[in-house]
Amino acid sequence: MKKENISDAVIRRLPRYYRQLTELCARGVVRISSHSLGQEMNITASQIRQDLSCFGEFGQQGYGYNVEELHTEIGHILGVDNNHHLIIIGVGNLGHALLQNFGFAHAGFSVDAAFDISPAVTGTRVNGVPILPMDELDGYLKSHSVDVVVLTIPQAVAQSMADHLVDQGVRGFWNFTNVELTSSVPEVKIENIHFADSLLTLSYRIANR
Amino acid sequence: MKKENISDAVIRRLPRYYRQLTELCARGVVRISSHSLGQEMNITASQIRQDLSCFGEFGQQGYGYNVEELHTEIGHILGVDNNHHLIIIGVGNLGHALLQNFGFAHAGFSVDAAFDISPAVTGTRVNGVPILPMDELDGYLKSHSVDVVVLTIPQAVAQSMADHLVDQGVRGFWNFTNVELTSSVPEVKIENIHFADSLLTLSYRIANR
Repeated sequence: MKKENISDAVIRRLPRYYRQLTELCARGVVRISSHSLGQEMNITASQIRQDLSCFGEFGQQGYGYNVEELHTEIGHILGVDNNHHLIIIGVGNLGHALLQNFGFAHAGFSVDAAFDISPAVTGTRVNGVPILPMDELDGYLKSHSVDVVVLTIPQAVAQSMADHLVDQGVRGFWNFTNVELTSSVPEVKIENIHFADSLLTLSYRIANR
Repeated sequence: MKKENISDAVIRRLPRYYRQLTELCARGVVRISSHSLGQEMNITASQIRQDLSCFGEFGQQGYGYNVEELHTEIGHILGVDNNHHLIIIGVGNLGHALLQNFGFAHAGFSVDAAFDISPAVTGTRVNGVPILPMDELDGYLKSHSVDVVVLTIPQAVAQSMADHLVDQGVRGFWNFTNVELTSSVPEVKIENIHFADSLLTLSYRIANR
């Protein structure tokens, strides 16, 4: 499998392919041409073929793609079968919303615990996930494997918390704090949800239609 | 101002420029070269010059960009000075999180009202915004200008609610439902927050580092 120098744009299209293929599976579609897949996704067929060629050989000339096979393969490339372990720090409204409504398991993540400073929530469970007090965090990290920490904490403490977690060995962050987090440790991967960028993109589109 | 055929990628970089320039303003930086701006944002200087040239003439050869001026100009292009009106439908955990913590005003949006089916929240205010019962929605839309509806409702009702709102004249959606909403009305602009795509991108990066 060729995996060097794959552009950010290609990587960011992979989850879209995965999502579309999940839906096609649910609709009972058995095979699909790159042309039809492109039409469903508003991408050209040649873009799809070029994207997928970064990861190996998929589909057959004149037959197209086997939907279920391609779904499994792209899921594998994305790591959904790796059973990544995840904890959430900050169980305010957003943390609650993720715990109660987001399908972590579909993305291959097991949500093992959540942490908060408020005694009003610690000791409880949300959707089966135990909410632990912050002073148990370091001990937890020493005794458990944690691939990703979801940060749903106030902006003011975001970078200091991230620094502390990197010191404790955390190497993956899903960042909802709207702060551009940085780390000097090259293995650290940070994925940001920038609500404001999304709303401003919408603002542009309604201002310029 | 040239505004035809601007690619999605360029449009999606505009909020990033705006965010970076906001930060530079806060740091008191008066002017910046495309080279330095590119270094801060991990974009090439020529990409920046090319992106901005889609919207007009900015900066001076040998001087660079006036940070505050460029911030104002990009804000203007994004429509942050249009005072868009917005309502939220669905005041569960995610709706609450947005009402309490998201800076709509920074993006030029005024949050005028929110709607929910639950009598437990209707009649209250969250961060000053009145939470109204769903049966007042249609009347509200008839008597108020609404540029964007934020959908933080369950997946099962997402498309039917969107269809209803389009029938009522709504033309902008900020969609948190994880359902790929569609509309046959060309003026309708839908911006999706795909949490799963973001987490899968992170999954890929930690699986392939």
